Amino acid sequence: MGRTSDARKKILDAAQSLIEARGYSALGVAEICKAAGVPKGSFYYFFESKEALALAVLDEHWEAQRADWTRVLQGEGEPLARLRRLFAETEAGLRAGQQSCGTVSGCMFGNLTLELSNQTEPIRERLQRIFDAQVEMVEKVVAEAQERGGVTVGNAREAARAIVAQLEGQVMFAKLYNTTSTLGALWANCLALLNARPAVPAAP
Amino acid sequence: MGRTSDARKKILDAAQSLIEARGYSALGVAEICKAAGVPKGSFYYFFESKEALALAVLDEHWEAQRADWTRVLQGEGEPLARLRRLFAETEAGLRAGQQSCGTVSGCMFGNLTLELSNQTEPIRERLQRIFDAQVEMVEKVVAEAQERGGVTVGNAREAARAIVAQLEGQVMFAKLYNTTSTLGALWANCLALLNARPAVPAAP
Repeated sequence: MGRTSDARKKILDAAQSLIEARGYSALGVAEICKAAGVPKGSFYYFFESKEALALAVLDEHWEAQRADWTRVLQGEGEPLARLRRLFAETEAGLRAGQQSCGTVSGCMFGNLTLELSNQTEPIRERLQRIFDAQVEMVEKVVAEAQERGGVTVGNAREAARAIVAQLEGQVMFAKLYNTTSTLGALWANCLALLNARPAVPAAP
Repeated sequence: MGRTSDARKKILDAAQSLIEARGYSALGVAEICKAAGVPKGSFYYFFESKEALALAVLDEHWEAQRADWTRVLQGEGEPLARLRRLFAETEAGLRAGQQSCGTVSGCMFGNLTLELSNQTEPIRERLQRIFDAQVEMVEKVVAEAQERGGVTVGNAREAARAIVAQLEGQVMFAKLYNTTSTLGALWANCLALLNARPAVPAAP
């Protein structure tokens, strides 16, 4: 039992690294198993298809990221300071990835949305749920800031969607130019999108 | 001569449609030739590799899009009204694509950036040049608006990059949710990013 779940974890970890480096379509099951160091038979014991594996990778990656977002966005401090911390942590995470693999690999959810969402409905639905959840988490923070009078937006949901869109767009530039410095603009852009001109909260 | 250039054009057109529908990695040269209705030998007469074809597709697509962006952004009317027209035309273009192929396929440049820019330097460089040019075109319009006193931004270049990032992020949502309605938020978000609260220019 210990060994089987170990093999599943090895496949998931290998698949996540390979998908981050090269996307989904470029990969084959044999290559994933080789990287994971497990026989191909194991793969089909745990996953009925490459698509099923991709869904499991998305779930696992989102579970970890959701925990991070929850810690930051529902944590201590002023609402806007929490958003700022989210951007800083995102930048730090991308920088750590760049240092370990040589290039900024970007956001796995954004990457797979542009690569696959128009091709497979199960993956589209999973990614929709993930982005819905992200927007909802940001929306709550925007609504809190609104209650305190720090921001002026017509619609907290739309504003949250604009912030997540800005984040994805700037992460795209980080990948394109292979530098995380593009993310430095996120905070000022977020304040502009929220029509917020508060005293700048303490740096995260 | 007429026939050869016709074959090249057929390959480029087929590749563009296939890349929009399924990305780059999922495609093989044989499939592209079949869709183009040309023998595989023709392919290697015109393109030394699939990557060379992708670069040619990018160039052709950008040539057409740059002409559109130039017409709109350097055309008649107030600077901000021209940006608004760019968003409206982008939305209309995505909607037309959705009607013809059933799904919103998004922005080819954004798609290939997230799929490939960390994997092949020639494609990364080409995409960098395209996005540099887009940002520069938007920057000129922002600078014009700034001169007229309609907007307040610290740095026109950064503001232009934020607008293109917002465009790419919202186009990503359009692809994810298979609806162009997400792009309706672009105009208000652009005004917020430019700290502009002008009398709203006439609809495009």
